[in-house]
Amino acid sequence: MDSAIGVIDSGVGGLTVAHELIRQLPKEHLIYLGDTLRCPYGPRSKEEVRKFTWEMVEYLLRKKIKMLVVACNTATAFTLTELQEELTIPVIGVIQPGARAAIKNTNNGHIGVIGTEGTISSNAYPEALKDIRSDIHVNAQACPMFVPMVEQGILSGDEAKQVVEETLRPMKEKNHLDTLILGCTHYPLIKDTIQEVIGSHVTVISSSEETARETSTILEFHNALYKGKRIPNHQFYATGELATFSKITEEIFKTSTANFQTVSIEKAVIC
Amino acid sequence: MDSAIGVIDSGVGGLTVAHELIRQLPKEHLIYLGDTLRCPYGPRSKEEVRKFTWEMVEYLLRKKIKMLVVACNTATAFTLTELQEELTIPVIGVIQPGARAAIKNTNNGHIGVIGTEGTISSNAYPEALKDIRSDIHVNAQACPMFVPMVEQGILSGDEAKQVVEETLRPMKEKNHLDTLILGCTHYPLIKDTIQEVIGSHVTVISSSEETARETSTILEFHNALYKGKRIPNHQFYATGELATFSKITEEIFKTSTANFQTVSIEKAVIC
Repeated sequence: MDSAIGVIDSGVGGLTVAHELIRQLPKEHLIYLGDTLRCPYGPRSKEEVRKFTWEMVEYLLRKKIKMLVVACNTATAFTLTELQEELTIPVIGVIQPGARAAIKNTNNGHIGVIGTEGTISSNAYPEALKDIRSDIHVNAQACPMFVPMVEQGILSGDEAKQVVEETLRPMKEKNHLDTLILGCTHYPLIKDTIQEVIGSHVTVISSSEETARETSTILEFHNALYKGKRIPNHQFYATGELATFSKITEEIFKTSTANFQTVSIEKAVIC
Repeated sequence: MDSAIGVIDSGVGGLTVAHELIRQLPKEHLIYLGDTLRCPYGPRSKEEVRKFTWEMVEYLLRKKIKMLVVACNTATAFTLTELQEELTIPVIGVIQPGARAAIKNTNNGHIGVIGTEGTISSNAYPEALKDIRSDIHVNAQACPMFVPMVEQGILSGDEAKQVVEETLRPMKEKNHLDTLILGCTHYPLIKDTIQEVIGSHVTVISSSEETARETSTILEFHNALYKGKRIPNHQFYATGELATFSKITEEIFKTSTANFQTVSIEKAVIC
């Protein structure tokens, strides 16, 4: 197989990034590795996250990837800089692309960010935003109920709406935002509900879509986009049991699997 | 002065890219050079455009730029690849960023592109789109009245609307588009009128906004974004007479000049 884009995540959230990569770059091969066995990374120490991330990276490097996408907020916050310094292939994370898209979009400079408790307490989004534009007002809020809800498959309907409404009430009451970053790769799965609750005057930015967009930018810049004609092969690996992983993969890719030549889902043994 | 982002254009159109760079990257210094003396580039031969573009590039390299933005569609089509190969600093053009943003946005795969006759006949946008996604349907149309209208300062009102309506009628009648790329750096100045005419169901993509976004991506990727605190200095140069150039610069930057410490507009002698 020609060189592929490698995607790593602590579990299934990064599949929304993989989905966007396949939608925006439909000629590229993809190799996805989700560390479902040791998910979530959020509550783990920096050293543990670094160790697990490097194990995943080494697994993918053996499969000859041409670029690495760190599709996990925690792993991005803890390892992006060292991966970029040490690997010879381009590496991007999920935080900066969302931040940059929000800066492009905002008119009033008031940007909201929602994510897991780990991501919000890391302060990575406000830092990324203020690195570029010091005068941005950031309203960051952890949404601890969202990931468990998504992982139970509750993506729309009354129950989803109620959870999202209650969670986002403090953010809505401030009422200044014109842009909201979905700072967790699970959240694009409930984007419609979030958009409905936060209101149509707020642009909701999916860090998954934006990360795929920037992967395209970086690959083109390195003259590494595949520009010929082919139907790609994708490989999905998980470190834990495959039943749930396969089901979620199928759910996310239901509209596009027809375009795949082969999709293999295999168990990865990396630890 | 610390190293700046260099922007070149055949004239004033690239000022919309400069404006977006200043909006999205407000800590960066900018050096803009418009070849107003020899504008437009559209009807010129490839060799002439290459010669003039290299003269502009050499002028900016002497001023120590850290990245080059080719904010002119014609110059991008004719020189981007060789500039990227020969310069040691990152170089981007205006075509690929707009194409990539359209691919991210489209749901139905029907993308419209409008530009000058030169840009449309070069086929650069359809090629950039199909390089990435072969199944995109591209509806490209030249709008020869738009640049002269913008250069006369007619940006809104009945006259502008009538010209835009008549020009875009063939594109509107096909009625399939969900995304329209403004493939000319003058067009963001009449974006509101174009949006009104084409309809709210079509997302209008400004290649100026998208080029600024990708400049941010590439600079961050090269660890070359300025992340400290400072008020930037910008320099604007034109090869022709300065009166009109200064007036248009002022028009485009009217909402943001308050943030500039100094803006110098000088005559560039490059030929």
